[in-house]
Amino acid sequence: METIENIAKNAKSAFLVTMSLDNETKNKALSNIITIIKEKESEIFESNKKDLIEAKKLLEEGKINKPTYDRLKLDKNKLQGLIQGLEDLIKLKDPTNQVLWEKELDKGLILKKVSTPIGVIGVIFESRPDCFIQIASLIIKSGNCAILKGGSEAINTNSIFCDIVTCALEKTPGFDKNAINLVYSREDIKKLLDLDEYLSLIIPRGSNSLVKFIKENTKIPVLGHASGICHIFVDRTADYNSALNIIVDAKTQYPSACNAVETLLIDKEFDRIDDLESDLIKHGIKIIKNPDNYSIEYGDKILALKIVDNVDCAINHINKYGSGHTDSILSNDKNNIERFFNLVDSSSVLSNCSTRFSDGFRYGFGAEVGISTNKTHARGPVGLEGLTIYKYKLIGSNNIVLDYVEGKKTFTHRDL
Amino acid sequence: METIENIAKNAKSAFLVTMSLDNETKNKALSNIITIIKEKESEIFESNKKDLIEAKKLLEEGKINKPTYDRLKLDKNKLQGLIQGLEDLIKLKDPTNQVLWEKELDKGLILKKVSTPIGVIGVIFESRPDCFIQIASLIIKSGNCAILKGGSEAINTNSIFCDIVTCALEKTPGFDKNAINLVYSREDIKKLLDLDEYLSLIIPRGSNSLVKFIKENTKIPVLGHASGICHIFVDRTADYNSALNIIVDAKTQYPSACNAVETLLIDKEFDRIDDLESDLIKHGIKIIKNPDNYSIEYGDKILALKIVDNVDCAINHINKYGSGHTDSILSNDKNNIERFFNLVDSSSVLSNCSTRFSDGFRYGFGAEVGISTNKTHARGPVGLEGLTIYKYKLIGSNNIVLDYVEGKKTFTHRDL
Repeated sequence: METIENIAKNAKSAFLVTMSLDNETKNKALSNIITIIKEKESEIFESNKKDLIEAKKLLEEGKINKPTYDRLKLDKNKLQGLIQGLEDLIKLKDPTNQVLWEKELDKGLILKKVSTPIGVIGVIFESRPDCFIQIASLIIKSGNCAILKGGSEAINTNSIFCDIVTCALEKTPGFDKNAINLVYSREDIKKLLDLDEYLSLIIPRGSNSLVKFIKENTKIPVLGHASGICHIFVDRTADYNSALNIIVDAKTQYPSACNAVETLLIDKEFDRIDDLESDLIKHGIKIIKNPDNYSIEYGDKILALKIVDNVDCAINHINKYGSGHTDSILSNDKNNIERFFNLVDSSSVLSNCSTRFSDGFRYGFGAEVGISTNKTHARGPVGLEGLTIYKYKLIGSNNIVLDYVEGKKTFTHRDL
Repeated sequence: METIENIAKNAKSAFLVTMSLDNETKNKALSNIITIIKEKESEIFESNKKDLIEAKKLLEEGKINKPTYDRLKLDKNKLQGLIQGLEDLIKLKDPTNQVLWEKELDKGLILKKVSTPIGVIGVIFESRPDCFIQIASLIIKSGNCAILKGGSEAINTNSIFCDIVTCALEKTPGFDKNAINLVYSREDIKKLLDLDEYLSLIIPRGSNSLVKFIKENTKIPVLGHASGICHIFVDRTADYNSALNIIVDAKTQYPSACNAVETLLIDKEFDRIDDLESDLIKHGIKIIKNPDNYSIEYGDKILALKIVDNVDCAINHINKYGSGHTDSILSNDKNNIERFFNLVDSSSVLSNCSTRFSDGFRYGFGAEVGISTNKTHARGPVGLEGLTIYKYKLIGSNNIVLDYVEGKKTFTHRDL
């Protein structure tokens, strides 16, 4: 068994190969994965069954809960979804090797800003075993390398998926099979978080407590969000039926999603506050008026409610208690909407629509790496672009700096 | 005296104001700084004299070195340079509030990606007192807020500069004077690095050891580079005179710059290796052949030299020993240049020109925040853009997600 440090070292070497692969090679690796998944379908389901048998015991012993058990199950539909996801990814443009801009610094001195992959990325995810293929494929498409740590409940399913990916990479001329790696144990997380020498980014996909733990225990940049405290503000000018419709959607369509609304702020001048409250209750929503704590992510059909004096009070509340994720204003007042857009310091700020729209697929990114509440690198729903950085390429013709310092030459700085 | 935590808290509140200021207001603040600097010129020089008197004692006691003492001195030229810098900055486009792209998700559902400032930024710089105004002005122009920690040797000069900035902000309607703050003591650094609740980014401007210390002691993202181990590779096809010219420029034009070359790699088939070595020595460069350590930043007219088998060996050496800063290939072989560009994992990769070109001003960014060897957020020379992130603004017309989940509506995802 290799040490995690060795795995990371080899992944870093693999990155020096994968970082310059062209789109065709990366797509070839993805289509090889599809082929092998189809070939090994029955083995995949067998491996998953093994995990389910073990998980059933844990469920009966009360060591895992029912939702965890349910998420673990892989059926034909989920596998078809995975294959569809891979096919969609193949169609996407290469996120790397794109010339972002080109500039003439002087005659015969051309600067290009070119998108590149980042490096070795640590991904920590919980029990959903389809996660492995989804993440590995995003990593491959973007030319990065990764060490993935899956939940121990899914060990058999993750292992066969990892074997499939390794096999697909081996069958792709020019690829390095050390690009994608799987580690298992809880102790591996701690070690992974210390490997800032090899890892350039950590992506946690899982519970808020997992993300929080990771953010607090590593110096490696973390892309993610620890919580989704999303707000809807009903301005005094909001249309009643639209407001009701949007709030019900944002709270009940998928209550455990991170972009579901948790707190409803209503302008005290809104004329049908009581009606709105009773109508929401009719839709099965439990209303908690003026709770002690406005920073709870209920993940359920529960909604905190606060009456506020005006749009500025709503903005202040959101900047104080929100998590910088997604906040929406329902209003017909252009000035208030403008104020809300500019003064709410969140990654997604919306007007007159449901908070549930803030999502990589709905935003049209084709793929979603995650949702970030960071203030650097990538913010909001993150597509493949979030797995890239850039390098500068400067193409000279025997130019030296001294000529410019001495004034013999001057820069033109002309966009090309 | 306020605690540093209070200062950070107030700066965070100030950010909620500065983040939405328009370019005119921010430029007004900058021109107010120019006016007050001109008014207080003699007081500035008096404050600087106080620092110089104290520093002279420290110099005589051997507690600071001569270069530190020299950098501390502010003369008419430097002050004029500062004013010129402010005037140039006023002319630059607002880096925030720019619509980066706009997309129709569906009819009546428009998504905009808009550049925004980041938040409160901690800046730690050493004895150059003109640094304060340079950094504060970049922070103001980009709508961010900052806590600046200057060297204690420059306490009087930094204080008057901070007073000038505060006064200028107070005179600018709509600004918050808590946007720019100065702290003094060494203990403040440690405290600053713990304030991840309030600070979103740390920018160290100073020695490699300072940057290293900061990177190792904070969870806040750090923008900078701990060292500049830059390489020039002389390919077998390089032109002799051009190579000599470029290496001399990269090593001697400003040997202590971070983008000066430290290691020269020469292809074993290059036909005038001995001539090149003796010509470099004639230019006052000390050559160290095959040193034990290839990761030393000499900061002087000293150059490590290694003969390599081919371009791939050069690339491997650079990826192993380099700091990901700036590396240049001198060659007339298109394939080797292409290989070098794609396979060297550095923020700036150059062909046939001096490493000294990798710099924000030379790259035409108008201003330079610093040079970053990070793999996330900002890489290479960083202009004002590196002080920004973005938010998504989604303008709806009463749209709910359920309609799309149920297939009643479909996304158009059309670029606008």
